[in-house]
Amino acid sequence: MTTTENTVRNGVDTATLFATLDAVKADPELAKFQFRATNRWLSGTHNQSTIHAFHGAKQDMTHRETFTYDADHPPVLVGTDNGPTPVEYLLHALAACLTAGIANVAAARGITLTEVTSTVEGDIDLLGIFGLSDEVRNGYQQISISFELRGDDPEKLRTVVEQSRRRSAVFDVLTNGVPVSIQVNAE
Amino acid sequence: MTTTENTVRNGVDTATLFATLDAVKADPELAKFQFRATNRWLSGTHNQSTIHAFHGAKQDMTHRETFTYDADHPPVLVGTDNGPTPVEYLLHALAACLTAGIANVAAARGITLTEVTSTVEGDIDLLGIFGLSDEVRNGYQQISISFELRGDDPEKLRTVVEQSRRRSAVFDVLTNGVPVSIQVNAE
Repeated sequence: MTTTENTVRNGVDTATLFATLDAVKADPELAKFQFRATNRWLSGTHNQSTIHAFHGAKQDMTHRETFTYDADHPPVLVGTDNGPTPVEYLLHALAACLTAGIANVAAARGITLTEVTSTVEGDIDLLGIFGLSDEVRNGYQQISISFELRGDDPEKLRTVVEQSRRRSAVFDVLTNGVPVSIQVNAE
Repeated sequence: MTTTENTVRNGVDTATLFATLDAVKADPELAKFQFRATNRWLSGTHNQSTIHAFHGAKQDMTHRETFTYDADHPPVLVGTDNGPTPVEYLLHALAACLTAGIANVAAARGITLTEVTSTVEGDIDLLGIFGLSDEVRNGYQQISISFELRGDDPEKLRTVVEQSRRRSAVFDVLTNGVPVSIQVNAE
């Protein structure tokens, strides 16, 4: 007699997750990814990005649909409010990355989640980007994120958040920075 | 006899832009902003952020609509592909911020743009977030963005991109990092 164990927890198929880790352990080249976005200026501070193709696991891949996102400035910043500001997308990226990690880590540890919500706040003094102060940086001065979790044992849930932070790509980029190169072709 | 000068260039109302800078010079407290996002876990690596309210110019404000964005992992990363990955939103934010700056700087300098497009690429080795190597960072190893510009004199266009980089909030955050604090309430 055999039993079939349900390997899905928190919506994460842990059997597939562990099989993926084993595959990458056996062939680390599978872990090399390149993500991409293209952007087109529309008018003023309004522009739109498209996210579709990426490379990983030694092949060119695409998302199942083409995602497009508008960014703009609100009227108080002389824009037309056709989308969030670019810096607001950073807050979304941080919350999304930590939350996905929480679900994965909890599933891998056999911990059930019933609810994860978060609020992210980023403080910025626009004297920097306005060029009105040399002492104020252009970007956020600090970002804070507050999680509410429900599920198994609260102490275990807290350690899940900590492990997600330790393995978060966005948390790493935002806190440690990354080299960015810019090429310009003007004709 | 009076003449009415058209102050709009590249979709940027330069009269309003300069008036805004004058107002902030007179009262620097107007420049203190806080941007916000809230996020809710849906299932697995799929979650959704909402962007609506922010604070700035000494008042609580809202965008004219509530923006919602899904994030997920693709199937190759054990997700369900209901949205881009969180790290792809970072690429969008970078392109959007630099492009908005290009439009503003060009308008302020009396330079006309006819086209701005860009492609952003971010290289990441997932051995880091998979926990399979202590020597590989979790986030992008490098990001590169390539702009195509059309409009006035190419040399002027290149200096516009450089000035946008110098005053970009997202470029600053991504290259220099920012302190991020995390609070957890688990019950």
